[in-house]
Amino acid sequence: MSVALVFSILDFAGIFFFAATGGILSARKQLDPFGAAVIGAVTGMGGGTVRDIVLGRLPVYWVESPEYLAVAVAGGIIGYYGSEIVRGEIGARRAAMIWADAIGLSVFCVIGAQAGLSVGAHWSIAMLTGVMSAAFGGLLRDVILNDVPLILRAEIYALAALFGAGLYVLAVALGLGEGTAAIAGALGAFVIRGCAIRFGWSIPTIGKLD
Amino acid sequence: MSVALVFSILDFAGIFFFAATGGILSARKQLDPFGAAVIGAVTGMGGGTVRDIVLGRLPVYWVESPEYLAVAVAGGIIGYYGSEIVRGEIGARRAAMIWADAIGLSVFCVIGAQAGLSVGAHWSIAMLTGVMSAAFGGLLRDVILNDVPLILRAEIYALAALFGAGLYVLAVALGLGEGTAAIAGALGAFVIRGCAIRFGWSIPTIGKLD
Amino acid sequence: MSVALVFSILDFAGIFFFAATGGILSARKQLDPFGAAVIGAVTGMGGGTVRDIVLGRLPVYWVESPEYLAVAVAGGIIGYYGSEIVRGEIGARRAAMIWADAIGLSVFCVIGAQAGLSVGAHWSIAMLTGVMSAAFGGLLRDVILNDVPLILRAEIYALAALFGAGLYVLAVALGLGEGTAAIAGALGAFVIRGCAIRFGWSIPTIGKLD
Repeated sequence: MSVALVFSILDFAGIFFFAATGGILSARKQLDPFGAAVIGAVTGMGGGTVRDIVLGRLPVYWVESPEYLAVAVAGGIIGYYGSEIVRGEIGARRAAMIWADAIGLSVFCVIGAQAGLSVGAHWSIAMLTGVMSAAFGGLLRDVILNDVPLILRAEIYALAALFGAGLYVLAVALGLGEGTAAIAGALGAFVIRGCAIRFGWSIPTIGKLD
Repeated sequence: MSVALVFSILDFAGIFFFAATGGILSARKQLDPFGAAVIGAVTGMGGGTVRDIVLGRLPVYWVESPEYLAVAVAGGIIGYYGSEIVRGEIGARRAAMIWADAIGLSVFCVIGAQAGLSVGAHWSIAMLTGVMSAAFGGLLRDVILNDVPLILRAEIYALAALFGAGLYVLAVALGLGEGTAAIAGALGAFVIRGCAIRFGWSIPTIGKLD
Repeated sequence: MSVALVFSILDFAGIFFFAATGGILSARKQLDPFGAAVIGAVTGMGGGTVRDIVLGRLPVYWVESPEYLAVAVAGGIIGYYGSEIVRGEIGARRAAMIWADAIGLSVFCVIGAQAGLSVGAHWSIAMLTGVMSAAFGGLLRDVILNDVPLILRAEIYALAALFGAGLYVLAVALGLGEGTAAIAGALGAFVIRGCAIRFGWSIPTIGKLD
């Protein structure tokens, strides 16, 4: 597979799964289907939008390529009506949302890091744009819908994105080729986040202060 | 009226009425007048700011034209102290806010769509920038002031903006002239949103899932 | 001291202290240390990021200068683990956070106003970019962490930033030299905000409406 194809697949996958989480949460909050499409678009395209803005790549990526919007709206609507299928099973919907979010996170940390490197930024900044791309779409979703942001929850979240972005940057620095590096980074982030979800991995916090 | 004049009037009207909603909500939340001016500016200018950023039209529109800020601050302050007049009548203030928001929504969906078309974007993207312009100012207002975003409420909201933006894009495509198209789009959005408020129009939602 | 040095010191100080407030709040909300670093970066660099975006200075300032990220992460981590030292003393942590926020506010209102003037904006717009730079980082922090935004609290907050930005713009207009003007503006904002914290200064609000 060509490098461009790898990134394209990752990008569309990330947008679709993130948008689906927006649709699922919209169903839980009883928005109407149009609201779900809007929240799907915001969740799926929000992270990449912020990434493009801070890097000065304007107009942002989706302005000239309407297919991104189509994928995001589809993701939002599928997440919304898909929630109907598991009506009454809050656990199943919760799981679908958490895992779709994990896929989006894993993919976008790599794409964000690649975008940072592509404008010649320092590796630490590429890791930051990776984490931003991965975290911002979901953050917008949770803030708009008044849900507790995933970053506030117990298990490893931002660190998984940081790990994936770091793995990608390292692999590129080691000369592994961007396509391989991208797959390695996304898998790495997914494994960390997946274990965090499955086994409740977390980092020791400072604990209750009062 | 020239096309430029039509858009100028719509733009200032949208900023003023959105800013007024920020002032009304600031009064309800008992902010001080400077807070109300800040929230008024954010609400009135937020949607257009996000629109200009994603389209790469920088610096954003108000940087070189201080009169926009003046109108937004005036709207915020008028909304704030105007709330005094209907002290004790929560219904009257609620109505003033909902209807001023409807005017802002109707006007900005058209202006955002026009901005999208002006950079050569696809019609679907122009509709998206229309909805974004219409929804983002109010969203920032509600998120900052910890109020339930209007988009989460029962009646048709995002769809009204989508309808207005779509009507504008369609009318332009049919060769109606931008000024006429703008007025048609804004009126269309206002009628939909107005009926939704007045008659409680809503789209069937997926219903309670648990 | 050269003007560039003055602004550099103010900038890093503002980022550090704002980032520290992010770390302190992250500790209170029991995030893990990586979450604290992320929130520290968002709080420390958020205001300047929004400032650069609306002014069209892209990529934003931290993309080409990783030392800003380093300072922000350090501030976040120090605020986080520093909270351990005053475990059990909610008053001490609250005070540390409020005063660090006051330093960030005072410094950033001047830096934001300078950025506005540097692109040739009207003085009123420079005051707005000053207030935005000062207020947005803390606003992002509070919105993400579900805390009541400081701008919603009783004492003078936005007005202090407006005062500092105005003092800077006025001093520059009077020909005082940018370095002196910057120090005057930052001190002015700090005195107003400090008195507001210490003596509970506030502006008469419209009062309870219902």
